[in-house]
Amino acid sequence: MINQDIKDASAAFWRSSIPHISIDSVVFGFLNSQLNVLLLKIKKEENWILPGGYLQKDEAIDDAARRILYERSGADKIFLNNFGVFGDLNRSESYFKDYPDDLWHKQRFITIGYYALVDQTTVNPVPDVFSDRCEWVPIASHPKMVMDHEMIIKKALSTLREQLSYKPIGYNLLPEKFTLPELQGLYEAILDKKLNRGNFYRKMMRYDILIKLDEQRKGGAYKSPNLYKFDEEKYNIALSGLNW
Amino acid sequence: MINQDIKDASAAFWRSSIPHISIDSVVFGFLNSQLNVLLLKIKKEENWILPGGYLQKDEAIDDAARRILYERSGADKIFLNNFGVFGDLNRSESYFKDYPDDLWHKQRFITIGYYALVDQTTVNPVPDVFSDRCEWVPIASHPKMVMDHEMIIKKALSTLREQLSYKPIGYNLLPEKFTLPELQGLYEAILDKKLNRGNFYRKMMRYDILIKLDEQRKGGAYKSPNLYKFDEEKYNIALSGLNW
Repeated sequence: MINQDIKDASAAFWRSSIPHISIDSVVFGFLNSQLNVLLLKIKKEENWILPGGYLQKDEAIDDAARRILYERSGADKIFLNNFGVFGDLNRSESYFKDYPDDLWHKQRFITIGYYALVDQTTVNPVPDVFSDRCEWVPIASHPKMVMDHEMIIKKALSTLREQLSYKPIGYNLLPEKFTLPELQGLYEAILDKKLNRGNFYRKMMRYDILIKLDEQRKGGAYKSPNLYKFDEEKYNIALSGLNW
Repeated sequence: MINQDIKDASAAFWRSSIPHISIDSVVFGFLNSQLNVLLLKIKKEENWILPGGYLQKDEAIDDAARRILYERSGADKIFLNNFGVFGDLNRSESYFKDYPDDLWHKQRFITIGYYALVDQTTVNPVPDVFSDRCEWVPIASHPKMVMDHEMIIKKALSTLREQLSYKPIGYNLLPEKFTLPELQGLYEAILDKKLNRGNFYRKMMRYDILIKLDEQRKGGAYKSPNLYKFDEEKYNIALSGLNW
């Protein structure tokens, strides 16, 4: 039942890593008005998994999160934010119940969740040795996940949605010059609902982070919409979340 | 150097608890227009400490956070929220450097931070056996803290401040009927700055969570200010953070 690869990995993790702690990352990608999530499919398993791994004995947790994401998916230079900790009883233990008790993976793990939202074209997913697939999957129709990874994705998504209401978003996800309908499309993809155009316009103007340019987007069938860019200084002040 | 109490505690923790994981809580209390934080002073130590402890082997992390806070401070029935994880190298290890290596406390600990904001009159702080004081201390002038507990308080405070800008606050912190200046006082205590009265009024009205009552607060020297109460339904919708 247990193969030599897993035995070797287990022995190595006991030497290198801090027991009971794991790290899982939820990386959201935005492309063509759609919100996706970066997932792995483990070899010979049906369900999918978040890119995750373990904390090394000599490693800070933020460094571990970046290293693990890179090793498992090829995604590099991604700014990850901790958004929660998942430490219910039996959240992971039962998954390895048929394995020997001294297997590293069979411990009780408390997992630290990190998330990021990136321009999907900047990441080229590469499966690691344990996976046969590493892909962007639409958030609205992602495959069945192992353990509590479905819940971890949901919590990351609700954190991202909450942030929308008080922090600006879009700086690295839209072209430098964009139209308000393009910005609205990003918000709609994250919220998974259509927004009223007039309300969206008023809310965005209230944030006071956009500069209206004296240019229009040409070439569409309709009236050419105005182009905007972010006011970098005001954007960063608003990012601090303290604009009372 | 090491006394029997610590030795016994160490042996008990090795039996009962998950190594490498600790939990620390930042409980903010509001009283007389001032924001305070609940701290402990360990016996024979100069510096203060957050109420914290360890995760038992058969315990979910949220349950552990509530138990630990109660055992260390007497604060009961407090709804705690996880706001971050602190896992840099040497954040806690050096604090016990003069102790034997097999002491439980000398491990590398990754600590899970929880926070709450409560009506201070509902909590009666009681020091535990390791502490000689357990007190509400003004956030603006709290004493020197051990390890990275100063940073943990700062992160909890910035999380609380961020929440102010998108979630309503005050339901359990103000009397049922309150004046706008009283509500403003709560916001000012949390943000540690004076707010413009007109701007505050407009922002609060935009949240649309208040009901203006046909009553005034009597007895002051000035014009009697209007009383308000929260619209419970709208308050809870706004709490969800998804009122786009």
